[in-house]
Amino acid sequence: LNRNDCLFCEIIEENSKGVIVYQDDLFLVLMDKYPINPGHILVMPKDHYNNLFDMDSKFVGKLFQLVWFVADAVRIACKADGINIGQNNGKAANQMVNHVHVHIIPRYIGDVKTGNFPSRRIDSVKDLEKISSSIKNVLKNPII
Amino acid sequence: LNRNDCLFCEIIEENSKGVIVYQDDLFLVLMDKYPINPGHILVMPKDHYNNLFDMDSKFVGKLFQLVWFVADAVRIACKADGINIGQNNGKAANQMVNHVHVHIIPRYIGDVKTGNFPSRRIDSVKDLEKISSSIKNVLKNPII
Repeated sequence: LNRNDCLFCEIIEENSKGVIVYQDDLFLVLMDKYPINPGHILVMPKDHYNNLFDMDSKFVGKLFQLVWFVADAVRIACKADGINIGQNNGKAANQMVNHVHVHIIPRYIGDVKTGNFPSRRIDSVKDLEKISSSIKNVLKNPII
Repeated sequence: LNRNDCLFCEIIEENSKGVIVYQDDLFLVLMDKYPINPGHILVMPKDHYNNLFDMDSKFVGKLFQLVWFVADAVRIACKADGINIGQNNGKAANQMVNHVHVHIIPRYIGDVKTGNFPSRRIDSVKDLEKISSSIKNVLKNPII
Protein backbone atom coordinates (compact mmCIF):
# COMPACT_ATOMS: atom_id res chain seq x y z
CA LEU A 1 0.00 0.00 0.00
CA ASN A 2 3.01 2.31 -0.07
CA ARG A 3 3.67 4.93 -2.72
CA ASN A 4 7.06 5.78 -4.13
CA ASP A 5 6.33 9.46 -4.51
CA CYS A 6 5.13 9.84 -0.89
CA LEU A 7 7.54 11.49 1.54
CA PHE A 8 6.14 9.60 4.53
CA CYS A 9 6.03 6.21 2.74
CA GLU A 10 9.72 6.73 1.92
CA ILE A 11 10.47 7.23 5.62
CA ILE A 12 8.32 4.23 6.58
CA GLU A 13 10.16 2.10 3.98
CA GLU A 14 13.48 3.45 5.32
CA ASN A 15 14.45 4.87 1.93
CA SER A 16 14.50 8.30 3.52
CA LYS A 17 15.51 9.41 7.00
CA GLY A 18 13.23 10.71 9.70
CA VAL A 19 13.46 11.03 13.47
CA ILE A 20 11.18 8.21 14.59
CA VAL A 21 9.77 8.23 18.11
CA TYR A 22 7.71 5.05 18.00
CA GLN A 23 6.50 2.41 15.58
CA ASP A 24 4.54 -0.80 15.60
CA ASP A 25 2.96 -2.93 12.85
CA LEU A 26 0.33 -0.35 12.00
CA PHE A 27 1.56 3.09 13.00
CA LEU A 28 4.57 5.40 12.89
CA VAL A 29 5.29 8.40 15.14
CA LEU A 30 7.68 10.93 13.62
CA MET A 31 9.19 14.25 14.73
CA ASP A 32 7.93 17.04 12.42
CA LYS A 33 10.93 18.39 10.54
CA TYR A 34 9.45 21.93 10.56
CA PRO A 35 7.97 22.13 14.06
CA ILE A 36 5.61 24.90 15.15
CA ASN A 37 7.16 24.38 18.59
CA PRO A 38 9.86 21.90 19.70
CA GLY A 39 8.15 18.55 20.32
CA HIS A 40 5.75 18.94 17.36
CA ILE A 41 5.13 15.34 16.37
CA LEU A 42 3.17 13.41 13.72
CA VAL A 43 1.20 10.18 14.16
CA MET A 44 0.29 8.23 11.02
CA PRO A 45 -0.70 4.79 9.74
CA LYS A 46 2.10 2.94 7.94
CA ASP A 47 -0.17 2.09 5.03
CA HIS A 48 -0.75 4.90 2.60
CA TYR A 49 -4.10 6.69 2.84
CA ASN A 50 -4.46 10.12 1.28
CA ASN A 51 -6.67 11.40 4.06
CA LEU A 52 -9.02 10.41 6.87
CA PHE A 53 -11.87 9.65 4.49
CA ASP A 54 -9.89 6.86 2.84
CA MET A 55 -9.69 5.07 6.21
CA ASP A 56 -12.56 3.30 7.95
CA SER A 57 -13.95 4.65 11.21
CA LYS A 58 -12.58 1.85 13.41
CA PHE A 59 -9.06 2.35 12.16
CA VAL A 60 -9.44 6.09 12.72
CA GLY A 61 -10.47 5.31 16.30
CA LYS A 62 -7.35 3.19 16.71
CA LEU A 63 -5.14 5.95 15.28
CA PHE A 64 -6.51 8.45 17.81
CA GLN A 65 -6.07 6.00 20.69
CA LEU A 66 -2.37 6.12 19.85
CA VAL A 67 -2.56 9.92 19.44
CA TRP A 68 -3.82 10.09 23.02
CA PHE A 69 -0.76 8.19 24.35
CA VAL A 70 1.68 10.22 22.29
CA ALA A 71 0.05 13.56 23.13
CA ASP A 72 0.20 12.77 26.83
CA ALA A 73 3.89 11.88 26.52
CA VAL A 74 4.62 15.11 24.59
CA ARG A 75 2.73 17.12 27.21
CA ILE A 76 4.82 15.63 30.02
CA ALA A 77 8.20 15.51 28.24
CA CYS A 78 7.90 19.06 26.88
CA LYS A 79 6.29 20.49 30.04
CA ALA A 80 3.64 22.00 27.76
CA ASP A 81 0.93 24.34 29.05
CA GLY A 82 -1.39 23.11 26.32
CA ILE A 83 -1.59 20.71 23.39
CA ASN A 84 -3.12 21.23 19.94
CA ILE A 85 -4.18 18.14 18.04
CA GLY A 86 -4.81 18.78 14.37
CA GLN A 87 -5.52 16.70 11.31
CA ASN A 88 -5.78 18.40 7.91
CA ASN A 89 -7.53 16.86 4.91
CA GLY A 90 -6.91 18.38 1.49
CA LYS A 91 -4.83 21.27 0.15
CA ALA A 92 -7.64 23.70 1.07
CA ALA A 93 -7.21 22.58 4.69
CA ASN A 94 -3.43 23.10 4.56
CA GLN A 95 -2.51 19.39 4.18
CA MET A 96 1.11 19.41 2.99
CA VAL A 97 1.88 15.69 2.60
CA ASN A 98 -0.82 13.49 1.09
CA HIS A 99 -0.34 10.67 3.58
CA VAL A 100 -2.84 10.97 6.42
CA HIS A 101 -1.18 12.22 9.63
CA VAL A 102 -2.16 13.80 12.94
CA HIS A 103 -0.24 16.80 14.33
CA ILE A 104 0.46 17.01 18.06
CA ILE A 105 1.77 20.46 18.99
CA PRO A 106 2.94 21.49 22.48
CA ARG A 107 1.88 25.04 23.36
CA TYR A 108 3.00 27.56 25.96
CA ILE A 109 1.29 30.53 27.55
CA GLY A 110 2.31 33.60 25.58
CA ASP A 111 3.78 31.80 22.58
CA VAL A 112 1.20 33.37 20.28
CA LYS A 113 -0.76 36.61 20.24
CA THR A 114 -3.92 35.51 18.45
CA GLY A 115 -5.76 32.23 17.99
CA ASN A 116 -3.32 31.32 15.26
CA PHE A 117 -0.12 29.33 15.35
CA PRO A 118 3.49 30.50 15.73
CA SER A 119 5.59 30.24 12.53
CA ARG A 120 7.26 26.98 11.72
CA ARG A 121 10.90 26.48 12.69
CA ILE A 122 13.64 24.56 10.98
CA ASP A 123 15.27 22.37 13.62
CA SER A 124 18.44 20.34 13.19
CA VAL A 125 18.30 16.53 13.28
CA LYS A 126 20.34 16.75 16.49
CA ASP A 127 17.67 18.96 18.13
CA LEU A 128 14.91 16.65 16.90
CA GLU A 129 16.71 13.58 18.23
CA LYS A 130 17.24 15.17 21.63
CA ILE A 131 13.57 15.96 22.09
CA SER A 132 12.55 12.64 20.54
CA SER A 133 14.54 10.78 23.19
CA SER A 134 12.89 12.66 26.06
CA ILE A 135 9.45 11.88 24.58
CA LYS A 136 10.44 8.22 24.15
CA ASN A 137 11.37 8.04 27.84
CA VAL A 138 7.85 9.07 28.82
CA LEU A 139 5.95 7.18 26.11
CA LYS A 140 7.02 3.64 27.00
CA ASN A 141 4.41 1.19 25.67
CA PRO A 142 1.15 2.55 24.33
CA ILE A 143 -1.59 -0.03 24.74
CA ILE A 144 -4.01 0.16 21.84
CA LEU B 1 -20.56 14.31 35.81
CA ASN B 2 -22.01 17.60 34.59
CA ARG B 3 -20.94 21.04 35.77
CA ASN B 4 -23.25 23.96 36.29
CA ASP B 5 -20.74 26.55 35.16
CA CYS B 6 -19.95 24.73 31.91
CA LEU B 7 -21.48 26.17 28.73
CA PHE B 8 -21.59 22.79 27.01
CA CYS B 9 -22.97 20.90 30.04
CA GLU B 10 -25.78 23.48 30.11
CA ILE B 11 -26.61 22.70 26.48
CA ILE B 12 -26.38 18.94 27.12
CA GLU B 13 -28.72 19.32 30.14
CA GLU B 14 -31.04 21.43 27.98
CA ASN B 15 -30.75 24.42 30.31
CA SER B 16 -29.28 26.39 27.45
CA LYS B 17 -30.03 26.29 23.74
CA GLY B 18 -27.73 25.01 21.03
CA VAL B 19 -28.21 23.79 17.48
CA ILE B 20 -27.79 20.05 17.90
CA VAL B 21 -26.99 17.88 14.90
CA TYR B 22 -26.79 14.48 16.57
CA GLN B 23 -26.78 12.89 19.98
CA ASP B 24 -26.69 9.46 21.56
CA ASP B 25 -26.09 8.21 25.10
CA LEU B 26 -22.43 9.20 25.09
CA PHE B 27 -21.90 12.02 22.62
CA LEU B 28 -23.30 15.32 21.40
CA VAL B 29 -22.70 17.01 18.04
CA LEU B 30 -23.31 20.76 18.06
CA MET B 31 -23.07 23.58 15.50
CA ASP B 32 -20.34 26.02 16.58
CA LYS B 33 -22.03 29.35 17.34
CA TYR B 34 -18.99 31.29 16.03
CA PRO B 35 -18.03 29.25 12.98
CA ILE B 36 -14.76 29.71 11.12
CA ASN B 37 -16.75 28.66 8.04
CA PRO B 38 -20.43 27.66 7.76
CA GLY B 39 -20.72 24.02 8.79
CA HIS B 40 -18.11 24.33 11.57
CA ILE B 41 -19.24 21.70 14.05
CA LEU B 42 -18.22 20.35 17.47
CA VAL B 43 -18.19 16.74 18.66
CA MET B 44 -18.01 16.11 22.42
CA PRO B 45 -18.72 13.54 25.12
CA LYS B 46 -21.84 14.29 27.18
CA ASP B 47 -19.96 13.72 30.43
CA HIS B 48 -17.77 16.59 31.51
CA TYR B 49 -14.04 16.17 30.96
CA ASN B 50 -11.84 19.26 30.96
CA ASN B 51 -9.63 17.96 28.18
CA LEU B 52 -8.44 14.87 26.33
CA PHE B 53 -6.08 13.85 29.13
CA ASP B 54 -8.99 13.42 31.55
CA MET B 55 -10.45 10.75 29.24
CA ASP B 56 -9.08 7.24 28.75
CA SER B 57 -7.58 6.22 25.42
CA LYS B 58 -10.41 3.85 24.44
CA PHE B 59 -13.04 6.52 24.94
CA VAL B 60 -10.91 8.94 22.92
CA GLY B 61 -10.85 6.33 20.14
CA LYS B 62 -14.65 6.10 20.27
CA LEU B 63 -14.98 9.90 20.17
CA PHE B 64 -12.86 10.06 17.01
CA GLN B 65 -14.80 7.22 15.38
CA LEU B 66 -17.82 9.51 15.64
CA VAL B 67 -15.72 12.47 14.45
CA TRP B 68 -14.97 10.48 11.30
CA PHE B 69 -18.69 10.00 10.55
CA VAL B 70 -19.53 13.62 11.27
CA ALA B 71 -16.57 15.00 9.30
CA ASP B 72 -17.53 12.92 6.28
CA ALA B 73 -21.11 14.22 6.49
CA VAL B 74 -19.88 17.84 6.80
CA ARG B 75 -17.57 17.33 3.82
CA ILE B 76 -20.45 16.07 1.66
CA ALA B 77 -23.20 18.41 2.92
CA CYS B 78 -21.00 21.53 2.70
CA LYS B 79 -19.29 20.48 -0.56
CA ALA B 80 -16.00 21.27 1.18
CA ASP B 81 -12.65 21.17 -0.63
CA GLY B 82 -10.95 20.20 2.61
CA ILE B 83 -11.62 19.49 6.28
CA ASN B 84 -9.65 20.57 9.36
CA ILE B 85 -10.05 18.48 12.47
CA GLY B 86 -8.77 20.19 15.60
CA GLN B 87 -8.81 19.53 19.30
CA ASN B 88 -7.35 22.10 21.69
CA ASN B 89 -6.26 21.32 25.25
CA GLY B 90 -5.63 24.21 27.61
CA LYS B 91 -5.82 28.00 27.36
CA ALA B 92 -2.31 28.06 25.87
CA ALA B 93 -3.67 25.92 23.02
CA ASN B 94 -6.63 28.24 22.49
CA GLN B 95 -9.22 26.05 24.25
CA MET B 96 -12.19 28.38 24.89
CA VAL B 97 -14.65 26.08 26.70
CA ASN B 98 -13.25 23.70 29.31
CA HIS B 99 -15.37 20.76 28.18
CA VAL B 100 -13.41 18.56 25.79
CA HIS B 101 -14.57 19.00 22.17
CA VAL B 102 -13.35 18.32 18.65
CA HIS B 103 -13.67 20.98 15.92
CA ILE B 104 -14.60 19.94 12.39
CA ILE B 105 -14.11 22.83 9.96
CA PRO B 106 -15.01 22.73 6.25
CA ARG B 107 -12.44 24.55 4.10
CA TYR B 108 -12.44 25.92 0.57
CA ILE B 109 -9.68 26.66 -1.91
CA GLY B 110 -8.79 30.32 -1.52
CA ASP B 111 -10.59 30.95 1.76
CA VAL B 112 -7.33 31.82 3.48
CA LYS B 113 -4.00 33.30 2.40
CA THR B 114 -1.65 31.65 4.87
CA GLY B 115 -1.63 28.46 6.88
CA ASN B 116 -3.88 30.12 9.42
CA PHE B 117 -7.65 30.16 9.76
CA PRO B 118 -10.20 32.68 8.51
CA SER B 119 -11.75 34.86 11.24
CA ARG B 120 -14.72 33.55 13.16
CA ARG B 121 -18.22 34.58 12.04
CA ILE B 122 -21.32 35.20 14.06
CA ASP B 123 -24.13 33.25 12.42
CA SER B 124 -27.83 33.47 13.28
CA VAL B 125 -29.61 30.48 14.80
CA LYS B 126 -31.62 30.31 11.57
CA ASP B 127 -28.43 29.98 9.49
CA LEU B 128 -27.05 27.36 11.88
CA GLU B 129 -30.30 25.38 11.75
CA LYS B 130 -30.35 25.43 7.96
CA ILE B 131 -26.86 24.01 7.63
CA SER B 132 -27.48 21.62 10.53
CA SER B 133 -30.41 20.08 8.71
CA SER B 134 -28.40 19.51 5.53
CA ILE B 135 -25.66 17.81 7.57
CA LYS B 136 -28.29 15.69 9.36
CA ASN B 137 -29.60 14.48 6.01
CA VAL B 138 -26.18 13.12 5.11
CA LEU B 139 -25.18 11.86 8.57
CA LYS B 140 -27.96 9.32 9.13
CA ASN B 141 -26.79 6.71 11.65
CA PRO B 142 -23.15 6.67 12.67
CA ILE B 143 -22.12 3.17 13.68
CA ILE B 144 -19.59 3.34 16.50
